[in-house]
Amino acid sequence: MTVTHADVAAAGERISGRVLRTPVLEVAPGLVFKLEQLQHSGSFKVRGAFNRILSAGGLPAGGVIAASGGNHGLAVAYAARALGVRAEIFVPTVTSPVKLAGLRALDAQVTQTGAIYAEAAQAAAKRAAETGALPVHAYDQPEVVAGQGTLALELMEQAPDVDTVLVAVGGGGLAAGVALGLPSRVRLVTVEPELIPTLHAALRAGQPVPVEVSGVGADALGATEVGGTAFGVLSAAAVTSVLVSDAAIVEARRTLWTRHRMVVEHAGAAAFAALLSGAYQPADGERAAVVICGSNTDPATLTTS
Amino acid sequence: MTVTHADVAAAGERISGRVLRTPVLEVAPGLVFKLEQLQHSGSFKVRGAFNRILSAGGLPAGGVIAASGGNHGLAVAYAARALGVRAEIFVPTVTSPVKLAGLRALDAQVTQTGAIYAEAAQAAAKRAAETGALPVHAYDQPEVVAGQGTLALELMEQAPDVDTVLVAVGGGGLAAGVALGLPSRVRLVTVEPELIPTLHAALRAGQPVPVEVSGVGADALGATEVGGTAFGVLSAAAVTSVLVSDAAIVEARRTLWTRHRMVVEHAGAAAFAALLSGAYQPADGERAAVVICGSNTDPATLTTS
Ligand SMILES: Cc1ncc(COP(=O)(O)O)c(C=O)c1O
Ligand SMILES: Cc1ncc(COP(=O)(O)O)c(C=O)c1O
Repeated sequence: MTVTHADVAAAGERISGRVLRTPVLEVAPGLVFKLEQLQHSGSFKVRGAFNRILSAGGLPAGGVIAASGGNHGLAVAYAARALGVRAEIFVPTVTSPVKLAGLRALDAQVTQTGAIYAEAAQAAAKRAAETGALPVHAYDQPEVVAGQGTLALELMEQAPDVDTVLVAVGGGGLAAGVALGLPSRVRLVTVEPELIPTLHAALRAGQPVPVEVSGVGADALGATEVGGTAFGVLSAAAVTSVLVSDAAIVEARRTLWTRHRMVVEHAGAAAFAALLSGAYQPADGERAAVVICGSNTDPATLTTS
Repeated sequence: MTVTHADVAAAGERISGRVLRTPVLEVAPGLVFKLEQLQHSGSFKVRGAFNRILSAGGLPAGGVIAASGGNHGLAVAYAARALGVRAEIFVPTVTSPVKLAGLRALDAQVTQTGAIYAEAAQAAAKRAAETGALPVHAYDQPEVVAGQGTLALELMEQAPDVDTVLVAVGGGGLAAGVALGLPSRVRLVTVEPELIPTLHAALRAGQPVPVEVSGVGADALGATEVGGTAFGVLSAAAVTSVLVSDAAIVEARRTLWTRHRMVVEHAGAAAFAALLSGAYQPADGERAAVVICGSNTDPATLTTS
C-alpha cells in the first residue's frame, strides 16, 4: 500500500485539535529541536493512532487493539480514551514499569506476553481476529505512517528554512511519515542504534530483513524489521541512514537534561546522538532539525544510572 | 529608580541572541505555557543578568558578583562565562547540591555563607565593595527587572491573544518586569507560596515588609521581602496577588511531569499551582498563560519523594 504527501496532509486535518502542536526551540544558531516529547502520551505515536482510528469510518464498536513496546500502546490507549472507545494493549515482558503504569492509568486492558515486540504483536493479531477490534499497528499501516508525518508538516511551518531533519527509526513509521511530509529539498537523516539497525540492514539488503534487538533503545525502537510500508517510502526517498552507539545515545540523553532541560527516553535522544557524536556531521551553514520524540522514562534514571 | 516599558524593549534588543527565545505550548484550548524552564542556565534569570552586565558600559574589568539561592547565581555565572568575565557567587547554605555543582561547572567562584538569601547577599555586598566587581542583584535593580520583562515581550508575540499571565514571585523582579512588558489590557496574576508571601504582605502593608521564609519554594523564592523597584511597579499595576499551599505546588510539579512531560523545580511550578488548585480561577473563555520558570532540580526527586 502506498502513502503520499496528500495522505499526510489529510491526516493533519483529521487529527487537528486532537494532538498538540508541539513547539520548536532553536537551541543554537542553525539547530532546532522539535519538542515532540511533550506530545500527549509522551510521544509522536498519538498522531498515527488518532489518524488510524479516525480513518476507520465511524468509531470502531469493538474497540481498538494494539501491540507495543510501550509508547504506541500508550498512544492508542490515550486516543481511545479521548474518543470514548475501548483499548486492549499487548506488550512484551521487557516493557518498563513506568509504561505499564501509564497504560493502566489510561484505562487500557493490558496483556503482557512475549519476550520481544514481535511476539506480543502475534498475540494481539490473534486476539483481534477473535474480537473484531480495530488493529492499530505500531508502524506498518498507511494511516499510521501518514499520521506520524503530520509532525513534519508542523515543523516546516515552524522552521521553514531547515535543510535537514534527523529522526529515530524503529519500525520506520515515523521516518517514513516524515519523509512524505517534508518538501523534497529537505534531507532526511534516519538514526538507529547500532544494536537495532532495522532500516540500515534493509537498505543494504534491498528489502526488510530481521535483525537482532538489544541495547538501551530496545523498549521503544525494538522492532525486529522495518515495516513494508515504511521501507517502500524510505528506499525511494534517498535518506541518509546513520547508526549510533548505545554510549552515544546515553550521552545525548544526559546532555538533553543537563544542557537543554528536557527529560527524554533513550529512543527520544537517538536522533540528537547522531549530531552530538558526529555520526552525522552537518556541512557549514546547514540548518538541522532534530525530532525529540519520546519522554516515557523514569526521570530518576537520569541521575542514578 | 523607575523602570518603564521602554526599558524592557531596550533590554530585548540588548540581550537578543544571548538568551533563548523559549517556546510556548498550548496545552489545552485557552491555556498556554511559556517554557522558560528551557532557558539557558535553567531559568529566566539569565535575561536580567545579561541585561545588567551589558548595560554597564563596557564589560566590567573586575568581573561580576552576585548573591543567590541558586538560579540567579547560575544565571550570572552563565552570562559571565558567555561574555568572558569572572563571576563570584555567594549562596546560602540551604542551596541544593545540584545548584552548587551547576555553579562550579560554569567556572564561577562560589562562597557558601549564611542560612538564608539575605545573609549571603550581605556578604556579597561587602565583598563587592572590596573588589570593585559589578554587583548583579537577584531582583532589585532596574536593569534586572527590565531584563526579566523581555519574557513578556516574547510571550505577547507568541500568544498575542492571552488575557491573563500567571507568574511566580520571590523578590518580585520577574513579576515586575513582566508587568512592564505586558500591554495594559492583560491581567497579571502574581503567585506566591503561602509560606513566603513577600508581595502579598507588602501589598497589604502598603510597603515592602519582611516575612518568614520556609517551605518547598525557599531555595528559589526565598527573598525575605519584595524588592523596592518591584514593589513600585507592582503596587501601581493593579496585579491580582494569590497564594498557594506547598501541597498545591508539589502537586503542580508532579502534574507538569506526568501530564506535560516537563521537569521543573518547585518554584517553576508555583504559577501553574494557582490554576490547578483553583487559587486563581479564570472566567469562562479567559485565555491564560502560565510562566514555567525554572528547572534546576534533581529529576530523581520527582519519583522518589
Ligand atoms: C520514542 C520513540 N522514538 C522513535 C520510535 C520509532 O518509531 P517507528 O517505530 O515508527 O520507527 C518509537 C517507536 O516506538 C518511539 O517510541
Ligand atoms: C525558578 C524561579 N522562579 C521564580 C523566581 C522569582 O523571581 P523573583 O525573585 O524575580 O520574583 C525565582 C527567583 O529566583 C526562580 O528561581
